[in-house]
Amino acid sequence: MSFTLAKLSELTATTAVGDADCEIDRVESLQQATGGAITFFANPKLKQDLKRTRASAVILKEEHLESCPSNALLTDNPYLVFARVAGLLNPPPAHAPGIHPTAVVSKSATVGEGCSIGPGAVIDDDCVIGNNTCIGPNCCLHAACVIGEHCRLVSHVTLCERTALGQRVIIHPGVVVGSDGFGLASEGDKWFKIPQLGRVRIGDDVEIGANTTIDCGALEDTVLEEGVKLDNQIQVAHNVRIGAHTVIAGCTGISGSTTIGRFCKIGGAAAIGGHLRIADHVTLGGMTRVGKSIEKAGTYVSGTPMQPYRDWLRSSALYKKLGQLAERVRKLEEQKGPGES
Amino acid sequence: MSFTLAKLSELTATTAVGDADCEIDRVESLQQATGGAITFFANPKLKQDLKRTRASAVILKEEHLESCPSNALLTDNPYLVFARVAGLLNPPPAHAPGIHPTAVVSKSATVGEGCSIGPGAVIDDDCVIGNNTCIGPNCCLHAACVIGEHCRLVSHVTLCERTALGQRVIIHPGVVVGSDGFGLASEGDKWFKIPQLGRVRIGDDVEIGANTTIDCGALEDTVLEEGVKLDNQIQVAHNVRIGAHTVIAGCTGISGSTTIGRFCKIGGAAAIGGHLRIADHVTLGGMTRVGKSIEKAGTYVSGTPMQPYRDWLRSSALYKKLGQLAERVRKLEEQKGPGES
Amino acid sequence: MSFTLAKLSELTATTAVGDADCEIDRVESLQQATGGAITFFANPKLKQDLKRTRASAVILKEEHLESCPSNALLTDNPYLVFARVAGLLNPPPAHAPGIHPTAVVSKSATVGEGCSIGPGAVIDDDCVIGNNTCIGPNCCLHAACVIGEHCRLVSHVTLCERTALGQRVIIHPGVVVGSDGFGLASEGDKWFKIPQLGRVRIGDDVEIGANTTIDCGALEDTVLEEGVKLDNQIQVAHNVRIGAHTVIAGCTGISGSTTIGRFCKIGGAAAIGGHLRIADHVTLGGMTRVGKSIEKAGTYVSGTPMQPYRDWLRSSALYKKLGQLAERVRKLEEQKGPGES
Repeated sequence: MSFTLAKLSELTATTAVGDADCEIDRVESLQQATGGAITFFANPKLKQDLKRTRASAVILKEEHLESCPSNALLTDNPYLVFARVAGLLNPPPAHAPGIHPTAVVSKSATVGEGCSIGPGAVIDDDCVIGNNTCIGPNCCLHAACVIGEHCRLVSHVTLCERTALGQRVIIHPGVVVGSDGFGLASEGDKWFKIPQLGRVRIGDDVEIGANTTIDCGALEDTVLEEGVKLDNQIQVAHNVRIGAHTVIAGCTGISGSTTIGRFCKIGGAAAIGGHLRIADHVTLGGMTRVGKSIEKAGTYVSGTPMQPYRDWLRSSALYKKLGQLAERVRKLEEQKGPGES
Repeated sequence: MSFTLAKLSELTATTAVGDADCEIDRVESLQQATGGAITFFANPKLKQDLKRTRASAVILKEEHLESCPSNALLTDNPYLVFARVAGLLNPPPAHAPGIHPTAVVSKSATVGEGCSIGPGAVIDDDCVIGNNTCIGPNCCLHAACVIGEHCRLVSHVTLCERTALGQRVIIHPGVVVGSDGFGLASEGDKWFKIPQLGRVRIGDDVEIGANTTIDCGALEDTVLEEGVKLDNQIQVAHNVRIGAHTVIAGCTGISGSTTIGRFCKIGGAAAIGGHLRIADHVTLGGMTRVGKSIEKAGTYVSGTPMQPYRDWLRSSALYKKLGQLAERVRKLEEQKGPGES
Repeated sequence: MSFTLAKLSELTATTAVGDADCEIDRVESLQQATGGAITFFANPKLKQDLKRTRASAVILKEEHLESCPSNALLTDNPYLVFARVAGLLNPPPAHAPGIHPTAVVSKSATVGEGCSIGPGAVIDDDCVIGNNTCIGPNCCLHAACVIGEHCRLVSHVTLCERTALGQRVIIHPGVVVGSDGFGLASEGDKWFKIPQLGRVRIGDDVEIGANTTIDCGALEDTVLEEGVKLDNQIQVAHNVRIGAHTVIAGCTGISGSTTIGRFCKIGGAAAIGGHLRIADHVTLGGMTRVGKSIEKAGTYVSGTPMQPYRDWLRSSALYKKLGQLAERVRKLEEQKGPGES
């Protein structure tokens, strides 16, 4: 796959500078690119690397053109254009349409045109799969799942009963969608399982990272709105709702019935409690513990800084004695008497 | 599936109030229920919702009956009775008994009566599967696993060699039971793998959430006692023992050789160190870091509260200087002299 | 499988003491061992257990020989020798070479001599599998994976396109290697997927625990050097590099483009930020939050100690007011005047 610089400029609505006929066949990093490659420049700290790059072309802002030794594509958002060009030069692997002979597809399932159903995939009763969707090897779709068009389930993906996916949804290996939520009623000291009767509904253009789990709702549904992007190993409990275009980094856990707003950015390994509401446009730092609702947009963090072990021993011992320390300060304040203040 | 109110009352040992012949065919929430649905009332804050509910019947305590506009089932534990009724109205999906032609079952394996072995499932040598157990699609049982009756492995479940399950165990997709523990002996700067020779033994009525992992023991066994309930993405290391009827929320990790008592409630994303003992009836808050044994029942937590980013920067900088702050207070105390105290 | 003490002594280059013809057929713990078993003694706190052991032989240092009631193998590293002996007595399960008839192997794939390809395994186009490697049931190898000799993929393992494994690599069930990294370019308030074009390269003698995920690189590769050992449920993001012989405990997450040195020991549930560098020989405590690079070898920790709930409420409230407390101390210092110091 290759394009001339002129063609890339046309396809990405950017301005080409230099040799418009230059052939581009791959993307590479600013430092490692060689002839035939296109790269991008977005971080001003790397200006020396820009000056030395051996790429055939660089995607950058016009203001940096004078430091560019090669052809260029001019744009206000070099990283986005780079992503587009990378996609043009590396289209997702084509899957030959058809149902592999080792796949097991129920007679009551409906498989659209142009779909690819991989080896060992299992499609249970009453599933409906939209056109041009790819179900990779060893995926399991339990009964009555409904999947839109142009979706891709890479491999080893499980969709439990009645899961609904929109269009262009990408699900990476090991993901489980629609498993039973953690619903228990106490019966004295023991626990009784509460049937989990809701579904999972996932909007268009959602992407879900490897080994992430999303539980079905207890009575109503668990919902991911359009454009949500989840990284790997995220846990989404029953009846969570995640607003459109929110992105969540790996290893984060979201407890049941919590609603997360739109356009949020949630750091990795965050732990979000249950029955909370998080506003739109909230950013959470990595490993943040969210114990109450967040009503205002902004950036929030919890946790203490890393220290060398001995320093940490001292800080953490004092942390437990913060109450005593505050009391000692109060006594000192008292002793100086009102006349001294 | 539907029942009269009288029949539900009989099956749940509750007192029916109102039209005993009323037909109930589903459970719904207090707010969304309509005719034909039964719901429950347990949270006094929702009394206005109770007054407005359109459900055909509400499960509640007698003391709230006067606010109930519909038929009722009276009980001291509405949530438990609701769970029971939900189970009666939504029995788990029936699986046609039989071994799917694409399943691979070793000749030396024993499969009980009424079992369902799904497409692509692999049952290795010397496995023994009790009656009426359901092994879902693409599950793998390595050699010599022993499974009780009425168990359900949903799909994509792996049981490694010699795993033992009791009766009525439910295992959700992506779970791995019996994988090698993280056992390494140092050999200078390098690491030598220690064979992991123990098994995993799981008691009756245990439920294990999606993508949870439970390692086999190093020499002796890893054990989950009866009635333990694990949520999704929990890590249980080798030689851990979890006491009966303990429940653990998602994303929690338990390091090797730790013993957790009975009737504990462990919050999500907790991190529990190795070789510890946790007493019975301990509750741990979400994201708690357990670095030492807990000898007394009670509730324990660690971690600092979430703050807006700028406030957090200040708190965390001061945390590192707690030693200096304590020293400054000590000096102030010294300076006021013994006569002033 | 059994050996005489003399043979074990020869195979492990240790000194046998006592009955050299004694037959040993299993390893057991110091406390539970009986006749025919060999055990080890490394923890001086267990000296009373050593004196009472009923094992046929004990692996220990010469200095403890006088407390040993049985035969012995003398060595400076009893735990390592124990691991070796356990391996001799419990060789990994042999897998009959051959390709199971239900496996799906592309015609363009190359499978070495002595390999075992399990039921339901899928080996896509252009994969190359070295001699004597075992691919367990229901594993999926996407196109162009290259695997060395004597590797073992236990079951349900996914290798995405072009993953490269060295020799003797062990991968436990549910692991996903080479899934797309979390690469997104902002397009206004929305997100555009950046194609992930790098691979994952894994060195010799690496072991990867159950349900761990390792993303492919964005442009360059994600790399695990030789001898790295990863526990269960670890997340390794795109373009991470982990140095040789580093060990990482379960549930740890490593964000993109971070480089971890050689010979590190990383505690469980640590959260390591992106674009950081961690030096060789660094040890991290469990649940440590790493927000900046670590340039010096040593031990580092973050987090606050667990407390009973009421104490924690007080400590965490005061933590948020640390700024005010520091200000009050500053005022007290000011008031005593320069003459008093």
